[in-house]
Amino acid sequence: MIRNMTALAALALATPALAAEPVLAPGEIVAAAPKADWVAIAPSDLLVMDLTPDAKAKPRRVVIQLMPPPFSQGWIGNIRKLAAAHWWDGLSVNRVQDNYVGQWGDANGEDKTKARALPDGLATMPEGDYILRIDANRNAATALAQGMARLALEAAMDASGDLKSNFPAGDSFAELTAHAGGWPFAASGANYWPVHCYGMVGVGRDMPPDTGSGAELYTVIGHAPRHLDRNIALFGRVIEGIEHLSSLPRGTGALGFYETPEERTGIVLVRLGNEIAALPAYEYLSTESATFARYADARANRRDAFFIRPAGGADICNIPVPVRRVK
Amino acid sequence: MIRNMTALAALALATPALAAEPVLAPGEIVAAAPKADWVAIAPSDLLVMDLTPDAKAKPRRVVIQLMPPPFSQGWIGNIRKLAAAHWWDGLSVNRVQDNYVGQWGDANGEDKTKARALPDGLATMPEGDYILRIDANRNAATALAQGMARLALEAAMDASGDLKSNFPAGDSFAELTAHAGGWPFAASGANYWPVHCYGMVGVGRDMPPDTGSGAELYTVIGHAPRHLDRNIALFGRVIEGIEHLSSLPRGTGALGFYETPEERTGIVLVRLGNEIAALPAYEYLSTESATFARYADARANRRDAFFIRPAGGADICNIPVPVRRVK
Repeated sequence: MIRNMTALAALALATPALAAEPVLAPGEIVAAAPKADWVAIAPSDLLVMDLTPDAKAKPRRVVIQLMPPPFSQGWIGNIRKLAAAHWWDGLSVNRVQDNYVGQWGDANGEDKTKARALPDGLATMPEGDYILRIDANRNAATALAQGMARLALEAAMDASGDLKSNFPAGDSFAELTAHAGGWPFAASGANYWPVHCYGMVGVGRDMPPDTGSGAELYTVIGHAPRHLDRNIALFGRVIEGIEHLSSLPRGTGALGFYETPEERTGIVLVRLGNEIAALPAYEYLSTESATFARYADARANRRDAFFIRPAGGADICNIPVPVRRVK
Repeated sequence: MIRNMTALAALALATPALAAEPVLAPGEIVAAAPKADWVAIAPSDLLVMDLTPDAKAKPRRVVIQLMPPPFSQGWIGNIRKLAAAHWWDGLSVNRVQDNYVGQWGDANGEDKTKARALPDGLATMPEGDYILRIDANRNAATALAQGMARLALEAAMDASGDLKSNFPAGDSFAELTAHAGGWPFAASGANYWPVHCYGMVGVGRDMPPDTGSGAELYTVIGHAPRHLDRNIALFGRVIEGIEHLSSLPRGTGALGFYETPEERTGIVLVRLGNEIAALPAYEYLSTESATFARYADARANRRDAFFIRPAGGADICNIPVPVRRVK
């Protein structure tokens, strides 16, 4: 949540306001970002899903970015194995529930006589892995001190290791939210976790204590269902092609499952990005860049010509991290 | 935003917890509501839009509930005139932008040589009508003292007319949010306004100070774009058939506009509900009922079997007002 951010206000003041200078919309700020503000996404950190072509024979490709360490690495390890085994090929999108999720995997997964066998060697993760604990002592001995955890510490905690009391308030689900390492997360107390924004991808599961293997996957296609945060594993986000899932017909069965096999959309293949020929290169806007700070401020305070009253704030899911094909 | 609500906690305590009693999911709480907790929606407060049948010849009907006074009555008056004139018949859905809005009206509206003429007598509303001012003195002399405004006062303000300092905090866009009179709204200072939750319907407009006539309409089909609050007029919500708009193919032009006429979805007719033969009766769950309080608490604190950690809060758009056909 972004509100009354002093650093951003200072940024704005530092920019001379020429009378003729147009106020940039968030997308225009992103388009003007220097190349150095963009971070390359390794093809091996992409999961590509090709659905069967649509009614007009147009291809439907969905590109998913996997989260970096330390998040959800157990599930991501399984997902890499499933992709290597071509496990999803020939399966289908089985559920599309309006304003909630689209879900794909084995439509017969609940029926042991028909279910497709999982590859050997998949890990089983504990529920505790839905959340990471902030290392208040900032010791470098654990993976938590690396990458996103370090950024989270810097963003969220003061020198004594407490959550900053002056951190902008205003999220409905957590003590604070912030972007770090290119991803949205929330934190309360010493715990933090990724959040269910539009397009985030998670691991379907049965009733607790099951945590899911990574074979059954879903993505958010409606208002952020943040009540799922900390209750289910998120492992990535759709960076291209979400419309191929969000615009599918809604299932008319319970929870939006399709009632007949004919209604399902087939999966041609799922592969890691490094196994796809001629895949474009992708990059995301560094959430630690000055451009991202200006972009987030502009999302929270729209000043472009259409708007008459800047909101003065935004929830974290209203500030999606920009991702683009490399030019 | 619902968090730590003392009244709700008291409600929960007042319910004997039998060992064998299952914890109800939000939908189960709503299903068990007594008839008295439901409020009938007058057919004359519904706007029915029939789209052309889909590729499988299935009908596509969208049912919209109009907001009650004191909100947006100028635009709603225009919309009633436009429906009476059959103005939308034969027009189309012209824009579907993923994770944002679907929009319908006159595809040639920007071209004065081709635009369909508007009926005579449409009102022009000022930007000030996007917002209502809370009457801190609670005088009954104005329309604001009626209906939703009274409920807003009771919910949001203490006896001295100030916003309650202990009102649950945590919205990212406003000082407080609450449901009243069956609708979601936000408030800051002495102002309040309806919010852009999923399925809410608003009035498209040109650049300010244009406020739109009500001829060009849109509905939210993604994460709540709350930055539009107070910048554009909301006048209703889709209560049935949102999937006929949210699952349409996304437009590939700027802002999700379709690039060719063939991509648009035709509108067969738009009428007020009282002009539609055999329209089902609809009712909404009173937001002032004990059932709604339990439902909102359950949305904010999921305790049904799937969940392991209740969120402890919810943003207002995560607590949609239940609407159903009368049995």
